[in-house]
Amino acid sequence: MQSFDLFVLGTGPAGQRAAVQAAKLGRKVGICEKREVVGGVCINTGTIPSKTFREAVLYLSGFAQRGMYGTSYSVKENITAQDLLFRCQSVIKREIDVIRAQMKRNGVTLLGGVAKFTGPHALSVTGLTGATDVEAEKIVIATGTRPATPPGIAVDEETILDSDGILSLKTLPRTMIVVGGGVIGVEYASMFAALGVAVTLIDKRPRLLEFVDGEISEALSYAMRNMNCTLRLGEDVADVRLEGPRRAVALLKSGKKITADLLLYSIGRVGATADLDLPAAGLEADGRGRMKVNKNYQTAQEHIYAVGDVIGFPALASTSMEQGRLASCHAFGVACTSMPHLYPIGIYSVPELSMVGRTEEELTKEGVPYEVGVAHYREIARGAILGDDTGILKLIVHRGSRKLLGVHILGTAATELVHIGQAFLTFGGTLDALVETVFNYPTFAECYKVAALDAYNKLRADGD
Amino acid sequence: MQSFDLFVLGTGPAGQRAAVQAAKLGRKVGICEKREVVGGVCINTGTIPSKTFREAVLYLSGFAQRGMYGTSYSVKENITAQDLLFRCQSVIKREIDVIRAQMKRNGVTLLGGVAKFTGPHALSVTGLTGATDVEAEKIVIATGTRPATPPGIAVDEETILDSDGILSLKTLPRTMIVVGGGVIGVEYASMFAALGVAVTLIDKRPRLLEFVDGEISEALSYAMRNMNCTLRLGEDVADVRLEGPRRAVALLKSGKKITADLLLYSIGRVGATADLDLPAAGLEADGRGRMKVNKNYQTAQEHIYAVGDVIGFPALASTSMEQGRLASCHAFGVACTSMPHLYPIGIYSVPELSMVGRTEEELTKEGVPYEVGVAHYREIARGAILGDDTGILKLIVHRGSRKLLGVHILGTAATELVHIGQAFLTFGGTLDALVETVFNYPTFAECYKVAALDAYNKLRADGD
Repeated sequence: MQSFDLFVLGTGPAGQRAAVQAAKLGRKVGICEKREVVGGVCINTGTIPSKTFREAVLYLSGFAQRGMYGTSYSVKENITAQDLLFRCQSVIKREIDVIRAQMKRNGVTLLGGVAKFTGPHALSVTGLTGATDVEAEKIVIATGTRPATPPGIAVDEETILDSDGILSLKTLPRTMIVVGGGVIGVEYASMFAALGVAVTLIDKRPRLLEFVDGEISEALSYAMRNMNCTLRLGEDVADVRLEGPRRAVALLKSGKKITADLLLYSIGRVGATADLDLPAAGLEADGRGRMKVNKNYQTAQEHIYAVGDVIGFPALASTSMEQGRLASCHAFGVACTSMPHLYPIGIYSVPELSMVGRTEEELTKEGVPYEVGVAHYREIARGAILGDDTGILKLIVHRGSRKLLGVHILGTAATELVHIGQAFLTFGGTLDALVETVFNYPTFAECYKVAALDAYNKLRADGD
Repeated sequence: MQSFDLFVLGTGPAGQRAAVQAAKLGRKVGICEKREVVGGVCINTGTIPSKTFREAVLYLSGFAQRGMYGTSYSVKENITAQDLLFRCQSVIKREIDVIRAQMKRNGVTLLGGVAKFTGPHALSVTGLTGATDVEAEKIVIATGTRPATPPGIAVDEETILDSDGILSLKTLPRTMIVVGGGVIGVEYASMFAALGVAVTLIDKRPRLLEFVDGEISEALSYAMRNMNCTLRLGEDVADVRLEGPRRAVALLKSGKKITADLLLYSIGRVGATADLDLPAAGLEADGRGRMKVNKNYQTAQEHIYAVGDVIGFPALASTSMEQGRLASCHAFGVACTSMPHLYPIGIYSVPELSMVGRTEEELTKEGVPYEVGVAHYREIARGAILGDDTGILKLIVHRGSRKLLGVHILGTAATELVHIGQAFLTFGGTLDALVETVFNYPTFAECYKVAALDAYNKLRADGD
């Protein structure tokens, strides 16, 4: 029997951060992992490999430089799956080392194996060498998710893949179907489209990424169509099946039949809670395996917390880490400030998308008067130099206080640039402060000034 | 005779902004340009072409991806000068169009020709079709600079170039000498080194870029030496001469003789004031052709302002634009806030360098107690993905108030990222606010959090 102040289930970003935070507070901390390596989906099949894949796509396809060298320009004439994936393993290995070192430095005990509740404060962790009994005052569930494939869909990891399977890709397809227009579906669909693959994206919702500001979502749709990506939105998939080797078929309820060399099934993921024996702790998951939590990330048992992808939206590594930190602070009675309304959203599509703060749709619904300022990358010198013709940065400001309310960016470096706006939001900065800021020239950051001037001139024209 | 409320000499960034600002205040504005095109050195031979050249270097040499694909990786085996320069003309043309459209939209009268004072409020502008007499209530001198080549140095625009001549480069050298370790010298020396050219940089000062934080300047020296760049600092050039075709020689006072295929002479630039007949307006320039101004950018004649490179340091497009704006606001009695202590410095070397706020050297001199937090790009996921092993972000915070005092970055996207720190400086943000910020993952912006945690832990260890 091993006893801990805190025991964490899962070593992804949420679990890591919860464990390290509690250790820094002087607590005795254990963490368990059912895979043979630490890091969770983030490091091993999700965030890190997909972002490494993406950098390879952008470089080898010459995508970022098409504005400079023309649309037919690419580094490699015949890009192979191997070209795109060979770097992933070394990045993964490096990140795993970083996490292991961090756990060790902070004195966190790492147990390998599958955890199962045996009581509200008791767990059994079954690994290669047998089972270990664990008891803990506080517990954090950070087990993440696994792909949700409905019965009848034959994921063969060759022609029909789920979102964890892209690393096993052997050859690049010429045509591809992506079922699901959420974050994962959009990221992969746009990356393959940038490679020149003819992609068809199917989603039953009427537009991509419903939580994103409408204008930006539409700009992304436009950019993806420009890369020869067909968007079948508002369409339901009736069946997915193999028709011979390397021939995947999607049948839609509307009667359409779509065939391609490769099909990526990325409709949602379910919480990885099935093995936990939640009832033994007096808990239950919802129909999608997810845990329900209050604002302190406590489950129905107040000493058991759940954080990260297992609690659902937004299921991003950045927010999951923060949830882990907050749960541990709350568990041990440490006051901890956080600004959930300022958590950024970063989507590594091609082009990249990022936002922080409010959307036009939310503000309209709440009756908050606002004005919008827009800057196009093509209008500024850096955009002209790189030939980025699709980039757009949009600011939303309050008509009365002139304070910044939201920032929405689609284009090169969006996930980095959004943090300039986030800082303004943190301190209640106004439009006027942005107009008065001196930006390096030439940078994409100048878009903030151009967009602020746009809003400024609109407000002046209205006599505000 | 044409009469204006404001007349501006020069259409570079400083002049443009002065003209547009006055026009927006409802004034009648004229501007003159002695070149056949608008935009000044910035658009035509300086900032824009050098940054366009730089993007081509980074891409074609595979520099940014060396960490991903190994040091021998490059897009083109044999990069030619034409490969690097062909895009410049189209970017220049585009930027010229933008400026022309902006002048027209704001009703600014554009006169082509060389301006000369004929009295404190009077000028004569001599162009192709003859001379135009101009009178103006207020005048802004924004004539910029030209390369300063001492007598005896035979710039032949083929083997010995000055900083305006790089666009005329016909073939890429295998070896190169850069005389002058200021901004222009460092930018070109590092770009050519990234291309694989064996570069020798000579400067009489003991280190590169003296106004930059010492640790960052040394990191840049280290990075440049790693690209096979030889730095001859603390060395004076005695003579520069041609020895046969494509053979330039620099003789140093220490007795060293250095030969190379190409020599770039980039020691300083002088104010372009020689043609202005300043005495006719009761003015004079200093020995380097520069205008002296007070904090409102007024010359000895209070109705005549001078802005941009013609007044000297920092001679960056970004600050020049701001100076133009401030001069026009002051000229017409419009209150205008600005934060000169928060003007960023952006240097487009390879790697890129940017800073805002205070340096360690300044704070030490003033006896301000501070702590430093450092993040290396290689420690964060995005750095691992791109293989950027040299990047560094350094924060300086006040030990007492914990407020951010300065940000210093060397590495990919430095000129963009510095604006996150600039926003914190604008609002007096603290270390703690940075620690609590949620950053997109994976981004370089995360370096702010890592560096802030580094400083946080140091302060805690000291009991602060």
